[in-house]
Parts: sequence; C-alpha cells; structure tokens
Amino acid sequence: MKPVETCVIGVVGLGLMGGAIAGALRKCGAAGEGKLLACDTDPHVLEAARAGGVIDEGFVTPEALLERADLVYLCLNPSTLLSFMKERMASFKKGALITDIAGVKAAICAAMEETLREDLDFIPGHPMAGSEQGGYANAGRCDFRGKNYILTPLKRNRAENIAFVKSLIHRMGFGKITETSAAAHDRKIAFTSQLCHVIAASLIDCEADTDITSFGGGSFEDLTRIAMLNAPMWTELFLENASPLLSRIDQFEKSLGELRALIAGGRAGALEQRLEAVREKRALMSG
Amino acid sequence: MKPVETCVIGVVGLGLMGGAIAGALRKCGAAGEGKLLACDTDPHVLEAARAGGVIDEGFVTPEALLERADLVYLCLNPSTLLSFMKERMASFKKGALITDIAGVKAAICAAMEETLREDLDFIPGHPMAGSEQGGYANAGRCDFRGKNYILTPLKRNRAENIAFVKSLIHRMGFGKITETSAAAHDRKIAFTSQLCHVIAASLIDCEADTDITSFGGGSFEDLTRIAMLNAPMWTELFLENASPLLSRIDQFEKSLGELRALIAGGRAGALEQRLEAVREKRALMSG
Repeated sequence: MKPVETCVIGVVGLGLMGGAIAGALRKCGAAGEGKLLACDTDPHVLEAARAGGVIDEGFVTPEALLERADLVYLCLNPSTLLSFMKERMASFKKGALITDIAGVKAAICAAMEETLREDLDFIPGHPMAGSEQGGYANAGRCDFRGKNYILTPLKRNRAENIAFVKSLIHRMGFGKITETSAAAHDRKIAFTSQLCHVIAASLIDCEADTDITSFGGGSFEDLTRIAMLNAPMWTELFLENASPLLSRIDQFEKSLGELRALIAGGRAGALEQRLEAVREKRALMSG
Repeated sequence: MKPVETCVIGVVGLGLMGGAIAGALRKCGAAGEGKLLACDTDPHVLEAARAGGVIDEGFVTPEALLERADLVYLCLNPSTLLSFMKERMASFKKGALITDIAGVKAAICAAMEETLREDLDFIPGHPMAGSEQGGYANAGRCDFRGKNYILTPLKRNRAENIAFVKSLIHRMGFGKITETSAAAHDRKIAFTSQLCHVIAASLIDCEADTDITSFGGGSFEDLTRIAMLNAPMWTELFLENASPLLSRIDQFEKSLGELRALIAGGRAGALEQRLEAVREKRALMSG
C-alpha cells in the first residue's frame, strides 16, 4: 500500500461507528484532503458529514466510491455486509484493501475466504468501542482512545496489509490490538459483549416500574445503560453467534444459581469466601 | 433541634461512607468548627481524618462522642449497628437525633421502634452513593452530588427532625430524597442494588480468564466494576435481605430464560420486538 495520506478511503455506512471512524480518520490526518469518501442510504447524514468537514464527498450508492477507494472501511451490520460483498464484489478498485467492523466474525471470515476476488485483501476487524446512543448524530460519543481492537486475519491476508491496518488503528487512537481467530473472537465476544447485553436487557425486562431509578445508586444505571440497544442490530448479533452465546448464558446462570443457593441456605461463610474470590479475580482484570 | 452549625455532630465509623459523610458535612459547613467528632476502631484512620481537617476530634471508643453529640451519624454495617445500639443505648446524649446509612432497613426499623430510648429520635436512612473501592482512603471517590437518598421514617419520628435531616442531606449535595417504608425500601434495593451485585459477581465467577478484558469494549467493565465488592458487608446485606433478593433473582432469571429461548429458537421477530420494548422502557428511566 502507498502512504495512507495519499490513499482514497471510502467509508461505507455512516451510522454510529462509521461516523466515528470517518471522524477519527479525518481528525488524525490519515485521510488526506479530498480523499475521504462515504456512502450511506441517508442523504441527510451524508450532507451533515460533508458540511461538518468530516468527509469530502458523499454517495447514496456505492459504485463511485468503490471504483476510487484504495481502502474501504465497511461499517455495516453483519447481514448487510455479507450481501454487500456478494453484490458489489465486481465494483471494488483493483487491489483494494478492505476492512470491516462487524461484531461477529466466523460467518464473514468463512465467506471472504471462499469468495473474495483474487486481487483484493479483506482484513476482518472489530473495534471495541461504541455508545448506547446510535446513529451518525451520536458518532461524537465514541471515544476510541485506549480502546481495544480485535483483528481476525484471513489466511490469505498479506502481512504488509495487516501492518498497514494496525498502524491506522493506532493512529485513530485505539490502544491494544489483539489478533485472534474468528472462532476465538466469537466465543470471547459472546461473553464480554453479547452476554452483557442480554443481562442488561433481562434486568430491564423483569421490572415494570420505570420510577425504580429513584432507588438507584449507580449500580443499576451502570448495568442497564447498554439496554438502550439497537434492537435490529443486536438481534442479528445474538442470532448470528447463538451457539457461543447460549453456552455463555448457561455458564452465567450456573454461577448465579450457585450464589442464589448460598443466599437461600444462609451460608454466610461460603458466600463471603466466594465473593472474596470474585473481588480478587476482578482486581486482576483491567478496565 | 438547634441550627445545625451549632450542633455537635458525631460520625460513628469512618469507612468509605462514614468518611465521605464526614467530609461532606465539613465541606458544606454544616459541622461548625470544633463540632465534628468521629469514632473508629482504627486510630490511623482517625489521625488521617484529623490531620486532613475533616474531623476535629477522633475517638477509638464511642462514649466521649456519644455524651456530647446532638446528632449522631451511624456509618456501620447492619449487624454492627444493631449491636451498637443495644450496647450503647444508655450513652447517647439526652434528646439526641440519630440517623444511619445501612443498606437494609426492615430489621433496623423494627428494632428501633421497639427498643429506642424515649428521649432519642432515630431516622433510618440510606444514601445511594458509594464506590467499589472501600475504606476511608477512598472516601473522596464518593460523589454525593445529585444522588438519591432514601429515608424510611419510624412512626415515632418527629416531623421537625425529619425536616432537619432532609435539609442536611440536601446540603451535603444529594439530589432526590424519597421517603418510604422499610419493607418497600428493602424490596426495591433488592433489585437496584443487591441483584446488580449478585449479577456482577456471577459474571466474574463464571469466567476463569482474567485477560478476557482484552476483548472488552466497556460493557463487561461497566457491568462488573461493582464485583470489587466488600465481601463481609455484601454477605451481610444479601443474607439480611434474602427473601426480597431471592425473589428478584427469580424474576431476573425468568426474563433471562425467556430471552435465551428466543435466541435458541432463532425467533428474530419476537426477539427484536422484546429488545425494542426493553430499549423503550430503559429510555423512560433516569440515570
């Protein structure tokens, strides 16, 4: 790849994350003047991004973007991404480098290993940053500084392209980049992300009184902020990753059931010991 | 009661919350110069508080404090509070006003209705503010501004004393004060506080890999920060409030089980609808 400042970069999908990525690319100077294009189905979003100086040109259909972009950042839901790649495979510029942000990786990696055009390179990624307030209007809420980014490279990825993407990710402000397999990503994300969203949703689901927050001291608010979820996207993520997610739910329910039994049995000593072990384990974790 | 600035105020227990309350009393000017006393079993904590100008005098045993204090703020775990009141009932200054901060209220209110000395008044309270980092050293982490405070008045409480305590609470920076029964408090706190702590503990309990936070994007970190819990205190709170807590765990497990079934059944439409309802309900809640 040529230096990133001289590449034409195309961001496909200016939702919350696409908007935040376009903003970060512009802000860190990676996307040189006149070089940042975006495509979205909503012309108002494109106009807002253009007027705000975030992008240079906006398109409601992707052809003009794809034929010019050296680097394409696909910021789409998993199913839209898969159909986009299927329908638009012929439109990408020769030799283009592509990356994505989808929250599940196995299906996408399998499809790309099989069907990606020979001259293209597609490096699957997942920026671990977001906001419970969705859409381009909230893109400014995503703070990438120090956040995790996962890459699940394909066998076919060229080493120099992986290095190029990693350098760009750091330049946008992300902290730790972890490379792993798509399967390991999906198993771990089922825990750190999807299970947490299912739990937050269940906490809200099981209480009818919306004034309950008069009795809140921060814990409930922190645990349920992510219940403000984008329902279509999370439905897709949960179902696409159902098998790892279901087993994570089962593991969580087992621990919950064991703590419940200690409480029901009034077993103070064993309960305190278990909570102390939890405290010690959490203290070893970052964040 | 006389004006608060002229009262001698005694804080019993300089842990996280006792320390934060002493600090807030001093900072807001409610405790006049020379008037703020504290008692703690740890002389180093007393010395730190005195040297820092937070308190005027510190005592390792409570007698000297109790015989002088017009207002006593009991910042103790529930069981310690109950035994303290039993053992020290004779030591309080005549006509003293007492309040507490314990996270469960029914047992304390019942004991006070039955055994409180005739000339004393005891207004049970629960400040909904804390930090997962415990102890006096972390008292500065408690930010009271805008936080909730629950009072569960006894039948015998004098109206002017309730008004006095409420005015003091607002002066320390708290936002909304809710008056309710001890039983209602315990049922609601079982949900907003205790269930959330049980969930956070279960999330940590069910995962062995402490490097899992390399795959964290904020959700897992937010949901498990409170797993850094004070094990003896939370054991006490869970067991003291076991019955409401167990029924809250059951309600949560029911919602979780239903969401699990929708995921396992691949029921996209019903799942999306349920998540959308969750989103709408959460949007009506504050915090």
